[in-house]
Amino acid sequence: MMQITSEQFAARLEQGAANARAAGFDGLLIAPGADLAYFADYLPVATTERITLLVVPADGEPTMIVPALEHGSAADTRAAGAIRFVDWSDGTDEYVPTAALLDPQGRYAISDVTWAMHLLGLQQKLPDARFESISRALPMLRAVKGADEIDRLAAAGAAADATFEDILGVRFAGRTENEVAADLDRLLREHGHQQVDFTVVGSGPNGANPHHEAGERTIEHGDMVVLDFGGLLDGYGSDTTRTVHVGEPTDEEHEVFDIVKRAQQTAFEAVAVGVACQEIDRAARAVITDAGYGEFFIHRVGHGIGMTTHEPPYMVEGEEQPIQAGMCFSIEPGIYLPGRFGVRIEDIVVAAADGAHRLNNTSHELHIVR
Amino acid sequence: MMQITSEQFAARLEQGAANARAAGFDGLLIAPGADLAYFADYLPVATTERITLLVVPADGEPTMIVPALEHGSAADTRAAGAIRFVDWSDGTDEYVPTAALLDPQGRYAISDVTWAMHLLGLQQKLPDARFESISRALPMLRAVKGADEIDRLAAAGAAADATFEDILGVRFAGRTENEVAADLDRLLREHGHQQVDFTVVGSGPNGANPHHEAGERTIEHGDMVVLDFGGLLDGYGSDTTRTVHVGEPTDEEHEVFDIVKRAQQTAFEAVAVGVACQEIDRAARAVITDAGYGEFFIHRVGHGIGMTTHEPPYMVEGEEQPIQAGMCFSIEPGIYLPGRFGVRIEDIVVAAADGAHRLNNTSHELHIVR
Repeated sequence: MMQITSEQFAARLEQGAANARAAGFDGLLIAPGADLAYFADYLPVATTERITLLVVPADGEPTMIVPALEHGSAADTRAAGAIRFVDWSDGTDEYVPTAALLDPQGRYAISDVTWAMHLLGLQQKLPDARFESISRALPMLRAVKGADEIDRLAAAGAAADATFEDILGVRFAGRTENEVAADLDRLLREHGHQQVDFTVVGSGPNGANPHHEAGERTIEHGDMVVLDFGGLLDGYGSDTTRTVHVGEPTDEEHEVFDIVKRAQQTAFEAVAVGVACQEIDRAARAVITDAGYGEFFIHRVGHGIGMTTHEPPYMVEGEEQPIQAGMCFSIEPGIYLPGRFGVRIEDIVVAAADGAHRLNNTSHELHIVR
Repeated sequence: MMQITSEQFAARLEQGAANARAAGFDGLLIAPGADLAYFADYLPVATTERITLLVVPADGEPTMIVPALEHGSAADTRAAGAIRFVDWSDGTDEYVPTAALLDPQGRYAISDVTWAMHLLGLQQKLPDARFESISRALPMLRAVKGADEIDRLAAAGAAADATFEDILGVRFAGRTENEVAADLDRLLREHGHQQVDFTVVGSGPNGANPHHEAGERTIEHGDMVVLDFGGLLDGYGSDTTRTVHVGEPTDEEHEVFDIVKRAQQTAFEAVAVGVACQEIDRAARAVITDAGYGEFFIHRVGHGIGMTTHEPPYMVEGEEQPIQAGMCFSIEPGIYLPGRFGVRIEDIVVAAADGAHRLNNTSHELHIVR
């Protein structure tokens, strides 16, 4: 896979400044996390109480405030040639040199994940400056992926698919959810993931809690089991869900599964350049509501994915941003019957001029496992 | 090891409210991270753009705002009996129910790690409310550890010590830093860590960058190698540093090492109940400065440790908080000679009425490795 070059990082910084200008901001304040990795090719060893912050002015030189003892690492990146570094040392007030980079009357879009303590430190120094969450101010800043990024997301998706194919071969009945989750973790790593972020195994009634992780419940014959897993491969995310059944499903289980499957397909077919994101949610929701299960679909239908597994664009009621070619996001309708079972089917897709393309390609049939 | 009980979580919530009252705050706003684990026995599957926030009013019932689809997990904890839960659903404005829990004129201490996007969301709804970073407002909220917590920190420290003893047996010369770092990671897990947060292997000139992690440099005969590693064991942190040498050290290397060793011991002996935290930094710094290396000790001497590996109390110039019995923190002086080598020695200690006790107990001699 091609490395992202110094020139591409410089271009991202210029584009970020241009986006800030166009939206009337004086700059971007980029904190450790996916934003900083995207713009500065850098993640500190740990995100801590020591401030690291990249200021990308609407006009001017990108400048990173960095703890003196981390300067070496911060400057040893492919993006460093396009960034000026300003150190601060333990025992000094880190917000003095940081605030000095900002316009006291300025308006800044700041990374969502910036620690509140750092935002409060800046607000205290600059009471007249205005700060807005970057995902509200410039939600689409990283939403349209470049070809190199789509390649990486496709590689992560293929690894998740290989994981699913392998998990179909393991025993479910008589083992705990945690044991199957450990299998998913191991398989994701075997297929190239450096980081595993979640391995949901929701069996029987636990499947009705969409964010149940995995627990000590022993999986039984007759259980529906929701498997939702993903992580990072070469810096880009995977996230896929399939629901399997231990032994033969009942008619009702078949029926609920088929509704979710139709909802997923309908939402997939609704993706088109220019369509508002909320329409994808509506498309899935209409299928489930018409089938009488609307009250049991209790979350939005999708979220963007890139260097994180949750980022704009969100496929949710109220999101009127139009879909653009190159946007990558999940489509994951579900039905959750409290105390009984849940079903969810999730693929990552990339929007293109001719509609959506799936980055997860395992079958949508209800797989029977042992 | 004893589990922390429902009664203890309820007591922590009451103590948090009392601390808020005593400091003139209307409440604590506790976000996912160590604060939430400490007060609510809860960590969401992932910290995301979906707000989860525990409001601990100075007077009133602790209430947690939680995404509807995570309610099940949030309420399935040992602390849940002492907390009221308020759900919010995708597609609604999550800051409306959150703000409704707060006094519009109130003053709140908010978790350092709260995402800026959530703080900005609350500030927009409550322009007259005041927010302060919890570590500035109530820095000592979690700093004094209970006996059960000290047990856990001691167990994590013992596991880190066992890791160090084992790493002395591996080959250094001719292998890369990354390979030795992978050994450290494996050993920490073998000795019981569920999470490894850092495995610094700074060989030769890389040791002079205190936050260098590990890289593709091949370790050579004659290298000083800084090893700084830790993570979480049963929810509590380890963090220890030893500096080893591949083959026989030079006189200068011995001299620098001995200065750091004396600085560490001097700071250790300076720990006493009632002494200001900054005095521990000063004690180590005086030794290094007197030896002529002051400009090469470029960080504070220590940080608190508990459910995170960096938290108050900080042993740093300007920190006038007095040390209390039960505080746990690192003492880690170092000397960093740019382009040449670095030395650091770090122990976690617990303050007690009779002075400091080490939770890391491996030898401070300069170990010779292969």
